[in-house]
Amino acid sequence: MTDFAATREMFHLPDGVIYLDGNSLGPLPKAAPDRVHEMMTAEWGEMLITAWNRAGWMAAPARIGDRIARLIGAAPCTVVMGDTLSVKVYQALAAALEMQPDRRVILSDTGNFPSDLYVAEGLIEALGRGHRLKRVAPEEVADHIDDTVAATLLTEVDYRTGRRHDMAALTRRAHEAGALAIWDLAHSAGALPVDLAGTDADFAVGCTYKFLNSGPGGPAFIYIRPDLADRARPALAGWLGHEAPFAFDPDYRPGAGIARMRVGTPPILQLAALDAALDIWEGVDMGDLRRRSIALAELFRDEVARSCPGLELASPADPAARGSQISFRHPEGYAVMQALIARGVIGDFRAPDILRFGLTPLYTSEDDIRAAVATLARILDERLWDDAAYRVRNAVT
Amino acid sequence: MTDFAATREMFHLPDGVIYLDGNSLGPLPKAAPDRVHEMMTAEWGEMLITAWNRAGWMAAPARIGDRIARLIGAAPCTVVMGDTLSVKVYQALAAALEMQPDRRVILSDTGNFPSDLYVAEGLIEALGRGHRLKRVAPEEVADHIDDTVAATLLTEVDYRTGRRHDMAALTRRAHEAGALAIWDLAHSAGALPVDLAGTDADFAVGCTYKFLNSGPGGPAFIYIRPDLADRARPALAGWLGHEAPFAFDPDYRPGAGIARMRVGTPPILQLAALDAALDIWEGVDMGDLRRRSIALAELFRDEVARSCPGLELASPADPAARGSQISFRHPEGYAVMQALIARGVIGDFRAPDILRFGLTPLYTSEDDIRAAVATLARILDERLWDDAAYRVRNAVT
Repeated sequence: MTDFAATREMFHLPDGVIYLDGNSLGPLPKAAPDRVHEMMTAEWGEMLITAWNRAGWMAAPARIGDRIARLIGAAPCTVVMGDTLSVKVYQALAAALEMQPDRRVILSDTGNFPSDLYVAEGLIEALGRGHRLKRVAPEEVADHIDDTVAATLLTEVDYRTGRRHDMAALTRRAHEAGALAIWDLAHSAGALPVDLAGTDADFAVGCTYKFLNSGPGGPAFIYIRPDLADRARPALAGWLGHEAPFAFDPDYRPGAGIARMRVGTPPILQLAALDAALDIWEGVDMGDLRRRSIALAELFRDEVARSCPGLELASPADPAARGSQISFRHPEGYAVMQALIARGVIGDFRAPDILRFGLTPLYTSEDDIRAAVATLARILDERLWDDAAYRVRNAVT
Repeated sequence: MTDFAATREMFHLPDGVIYLDGNSLGPLPKAAPDRVHEMMTAEWGEMLITAWNRAGWMAAPARIGDRIARLIGAAPCTVVMGDTLSVKVYQALAAALEMQPDRRVILSDTGNFPSDLYVAEGLIEALGRGHRLKRVAPEEVADHIDDTVAATLLTEVDYRTGRRHDMAALTRRAHEAGALAIWDLAHSAGALPVDLAGTDADFAVGCTYKFLNSGPGGPAFIYIRPDLADRARPALAGWLGHEAPFAFDPDYRPGAGIARMRVGTPPILQLAALDAALDIWEGVDMGDLRRRSIALAELFRDEVARSCPGLELASPADPAARGSQISFRHPEGYAVMQALIARGVIGDFRAPDILRFGLTPLYTSEDDIRAAVATLARILDERLWDDAAYRVRNAVT
């Protein structure tokens, strides 16, 4: 049984704050600042360039990829770290399209994170070969997977509502139609059990600064099904994906397997923070995590149903159909969220009217949920959101 | 007059080491570890998600881009930080090729850093439109710029020999032929005065972990000539390059100017280290830096000429034709460099036979040069390199 009181102790949670936005930026693992400081002084400072070997920097993207692999049901040596999620989406999609020379449709859904769609649009324009991005309603994806589809490009968990796709079923459907399945795990990795090997997914990508708590701008990851990896041509052919980076060959030869998806020099400071954050996961059972995530969500729902009559559930009612967040609609959602934040309850607003609350069992308690909903109830009951100060939108919300 | 004794004091230089590899990885600025630690605890730890606005994280890539701009002769708001150099090369080249729909040649030289060539090869294959990467000898580049050339893709300073292209002349030649000029400033930014605006360069990219001392995997930068920027379509169309990232529009609309070259979430830890490193440059005059760089190189040459008869100069003899490094050939170059490193003099070996020494006026002194060459002379004189232990190649050299 995972000890979630112990994992909570491993995070710095500021006084007076209830943090329900760990699905946007995870909080600071207490061990991370000293870990990064130590890396900078003992490795960068003392070993200088030789740290690339002596301190294991060069191997870090693969070593840490293996730590992530365990959390997403992937075999060792199938995941590598680097770049940002958008770059990894680009690489996965470009490789998939090249494997499907006779198909022109990229199938996604209208709930996908916009950046994935932007990346697809940018790639389509760059390629100029008549590919088309087809966006359908999330519940209609399966019906649109046909023999025109080169690849599906789906995010398992919807960033606004928390609605969860059936990864196994959609991947099977894609394969039946001869399509490749690309999964964005931004709101899945560290949020719920993922079984990449079992679902036979072809490509997967994700970020680490949400449920994995690597800090702002932490590196992304990419996975390729092992039997496909040696056929995947990285559009971004960088030297660290080369078979022999330090041979300085004039010609590119992709490295073996997932290693070819490395591009440039890895961000060692961010990787050190991620490494410290991943230590927290060592004792965590993903089944326990999921059970607790659902319990927190159900508590949130019950408390809202009891005390917040103005809120409409935006997430699926069925826990199995949700990720690790719960969302509600309110016509004044933006102002309500600002009023909440002003009172120390940090969630997120997503246009047009969604209040989003991340549920992160590693550090969120039942008391947090009860206190958060009590504050929310008071804001709604007393119309505290109806204040001009809460209506001014910032650049980042 | 720049106070280089003062700048040297701002770096941590390990005891017993003479570091002449700052053109591979700059040493640790003393202020950097605490700066990053403070950012992690006070900003990430205390402000959590709100730090994107309150601590200025979202604006950091543009703000720090302006700090770099000053060092490379670019106007404010023309440089932005992010990703790795390879990714930025890809973006610049993809945008340039799209501006040149009727031309198919990318002109580079055989001395270019291999990763730039790999990236070009990868882009050519992904596009599948018959582009061709033409590599000629560095001294023949000008003669091959004709009306088939879409873009030149050149690194100003050769990573092995330090040979320097004439950026102004080659850019002029490119423009006369209707080609676009893309410059890689990896070994230029912080190494010598660069005048992007004055030379009318179209695109420039560079890394920050060499002469700018941002630490392992520090973010790259990209510059676009201001009048071209709004026509540049970013192949990597990520949400932070969108005109309104937090509107979560389903369709991509590129941001104004260079901002569109942002892709994903910026690496805030690495940016904090870079910011600390850039403070050191506040009092530095680039003309002073160049004069001192040349003086250190000439001293190195004189000392080698006097005491190391077995070494052949691999760099241009004319200081004006060199960057901020000096290189020599030796048939047993690899073993010689290992013997040097074992004695605390850290330079770099580059195949097949080059000993490379970075000259970094911010922290390299005349005494360092004299002591380094004295050690080198002894290794050569006494054949200390002739030891089996020095012949085993590591993954990273």
